[in-house]
Amino acid sequence: MASDNYLILDSLLTANGFPHPGKLRAKRTKWNVRASEMSKRTFNPIRAIVDNMKIQPNPNKPLIALSIGDPTVFGNLPTDVKVLQAMKEAVDSGKYNGYASSIGYQTSREAVVNFYSCPESPLEAKDVILTSGCSQAIEMAISVLANPGQNILIPRPGFSLYKTLAISIGIEVKLYNLLPEKSWEIDLKHLESLIDDKTACIIINNPSNPCGSVFSKFHLQKILAVAARNYLPILADEIYGDMVFPECKYVALATLSSTVPILSCGGLAKRWLIPGWRMGWILIHDRNNIFSREVRDGLVRLSQRILGPCTIVQGALETILNKTTPEFYDDTIRFLQSNSVVCYKTLSTVPGLQPVRACGAMYLMVGIEMEHFPEFENDIQFTERMIAEQSVFCLPAACFEYPNFFRIVLTVPADMMVEACNRIRQFCENHYQPQENRIGDEIECDK
Amino acid sequence: MASDNYLILDSLLTANGFPHPGKLRAKRTKWNVRASEMSKRTFNPIRAIVDNMKIQPNPNKPLIALSIGDPTVFGNLPTDVKVLQAMKEAVDSGKYNGYASSIGYQTSREAVVNFYSCPESPLEAKDVILTSGCSQAIEMAISVLANPGQNILIPRPGFSLYKTLAISIGIEVKLYNLLPEKSWEIDLKHLESLIDDKTACIIINNPSNPCGSVFSKFHLQKILAVAARNYLPILADEIYGDMVFPECKYVALATLSSTVPILSCGGLAKRWLIPGWRMGWILIHDRNNIFSREVRDGLVRLSQRILGPCTIVQGALETILNKTTPEFYDDTIRFLQSNSVVCYKTLSTVPGLQPVRACGAMYLMVGIEMEHFPEFENDIQFTERMIAEQSVFCLPAACFEYPNFFRIVLTVPADMMVEACNRIRQFCENHYQPQENRIGDEIECDK
Repeated sequence: MASDNYLILDSLLTANGFPHPGKLRAKRTKWNVRASEMSKRTFNPIRAIVDNMKIQPNPNKPLIALSIGDPTVFGNLPTDVKVLQAMKEAVDSGKYNGYASSIGYQTSREAVVNFYSCPESPLEAKDVILTSGCSQAIEMAISVLANPGQNILIPRPGFSLYKTLAISIGIEVKLYNLLPEKSWEIDLKHLESLIDDKTACIIINNPSNPCGSVFSKFHLQKILAVAARNYLPILADEIYGDMVFPECKYVALATLSSTVPILSCGGLAKRWLIPGWRMGWILIHDRNNIFSREVRDGLVRLSQRILGPCTIVQGALETILNKTTPEFYDDTIRFLQSNSVVCYKTLSTVPGLQPVRACGAMYLMVGIEMEHFPEFENDIQFTERMIAEQSVFCLPAACFEYPNFFRIVLTVPADMMVEACNRIRQFCENHYQPQENRIGDEIECDK
Repeated sequence: MASDNYLILDSLLTANGFPHPGKLRAKRTKWNVRASEMSKRTFNPIRAIVDNMKIQPNPNKPLIALSIGDPTVFGNLPTDVKVLQAMKEAVDSGKYNGYASSIGYQTSREAVVNFYSCPESPLEAKDVILTSGCSQAIEMAISVLANPGQNILIPRPGFSLYKTLAISIGIEVKLYNLLPEKSWEIDLKHLESLIDDKTACIIINNPSNPCGSVFSKFHLQKILAVAARNYLPILADEIYGDMVFPECKYVALATLSSTVPILSCGGLAKRWLIPGWRMGWILIHDRNNIFSREVRDGLVRLSQRILGPCTIVQGALETILNKTTPEFYDDTIRFLQSNSVVCYKTLSTVPGLQPVRACGAMYLMVGIEMEHFPEFENDIQFTERMIAEQSVFCLPAACFEYPNFFRIVLTVPADMMVEACNRIRQFCENHYQPQENRIGDEIECDK
């Protein structure tokens, strides 16, 4: 702020007329209020890409937005009535209007313990920190584990928030590759090659946004082995935990290791279909006391900055976790799986597309064989034109630091899913060029 | 983290056997997970002082806690039934379960505009940013205005969060004095003397925690003049806005200036008696476009880190602001004033105490004539012993960076207020030493 201001020195010149070092009093002479560097570094790549896209749907077709990771937008996936009831009871009780402890009410943290603790990864109330959404859980976990100048390892393709938060506070990110041909498993060699003496932690996102992938127990064990032999803690973003299709199995990372310290971030947003309520948590898994008092204390200190989530939601939490019916969870998963199957099956037969089968979460990634779509330079142009012609809006995987894919959100009503897939087929059929007839090749032949 | 690790270099030695500069690959050889510097710098002075105090009440007297700035703890100040009703309607509507815009729903921001906009300081929806409590509003406002290495000016005595937040992100604080003999007005000369070329903003807290003071229009104009001639924006913490006793008048700072850019931080916590709900806001007052796009953009970017407050509370906001009855506000103020008068009148007649009359908020500061209490070294020892003997717990003003005062919270039930004041009187009478008989003097005479 000061450096590019006009300054006059209003006192204390030395005998020779030069300012006395260290005793300057500089005065501003005009308004020049700038935004901080930190706020400028807080950069959301999705916004940057989407805001620059030409998003003008075809006026003759209603827009189908497969772009928004919010399961509530279409109204077809309401939360459980028990969840709403719990909220109203919390309001009526009058017990949840004052400040909670900054890490959350003891009873609410105990409810999370009851829900998630298991013999393989036991939890106590002191291991739970309630946060304002899973975003704040991730923010606090990154903030407590890494210093400016250090780096954290994050998945590519991956949820953009990790990078946004890290860069904003001066922490570098290194992107490890996920392998589409292996159902988006981590390229473990690549992961390990990125580790250096400045690496503070590894972020794992399972089930994955944007991939819809779910890691096997075996793969998770191999990830843990990398962390263990490099003495690195893991930040496990498990917000989509348990949102997996019946043929797959979700294993919480912490159940597989008693040595690697893990901060598992989660919340009510996705499984309970109430992302706006901002109820998240950090589960501290650290059976060997590697985090020690320092990291626990650090999390408590960070929680005191803005205090925790809304106390009404905290008050409702025990009932929400205990009373939501199994049918509710099952219905959601059945719906997502059905859409996922429709989408995968349809797009598998579309020329030039390579969808990757999803196993959970609420997304599916679709590869674009760019060589068959020579009109388009990249996934951004491809998805732009898909909006313009078919009024179907998918996020280009550039939003997740990955090329030549786009992401489909599976929460739209079933008929819209079918319609969207048909329009995507239409779009691809209109633009697909068999490799032997590529525009580029023709030009070559003309030479 | 890396610096105090045992490292071995596992590759890439040069021909002469020395590591190749810049190509080191260091490997950790043991677990050593430390908390970040930022988390360690996040320091709550109240916790540090209170956690070290001997707080063991007299077992023969029930504890009266005049220490907690939460108006809901005694149950005597419930929120308006209209507020609870608004929440349940928001839950039932089913409209507020998804993500809001990171700065809050447009309709909710418009409701804030309707409530606070006035001809002297007009607001539009784009001037409102909804936050997770006033704490996040203050955090975002500091974060957008100041860079590490810069400083901000904060009141002494003052709310500890300003310093906690600033120091945690590497921003220095300079404390300007409030003058108890002038009803806690700002020592403007002192304020201005602290301004240097690294000063990023001035924080004003009016009405004040911990002082219970309310600045006059004239005093606010003089504060604005200091800001204007030094070209400094103001962060106005106005969370206790409008919570003033009838004989005083609260003037929102922004109504008095069209030149000084002001970020006014507020929320539902205090006036609506629901601090746990975490609904806060920043009002951007900047009629001359001094903040420009950059600061506004910065605030929007920062809002994307963890997204805003709980959407149910956002959904209820319009009704809360529009339907809360004037009687509700008046009742709260009448109650606080009554306690304030009881407290001030009683303690004014207690030997060795100098209460400062309160005009608003929910606090009153009491000076301790330490020379008359030679047993106690400072306000911390004084308040410790008051707990031990009388089971009355007041925060020592050391918690607010000020010596020889203690703070009384005025929200306790009336009978407890009376009882507490009587016990404080008893305590002081038991320990008061007329100046001519001070222990120190006696020892001097004995020599």
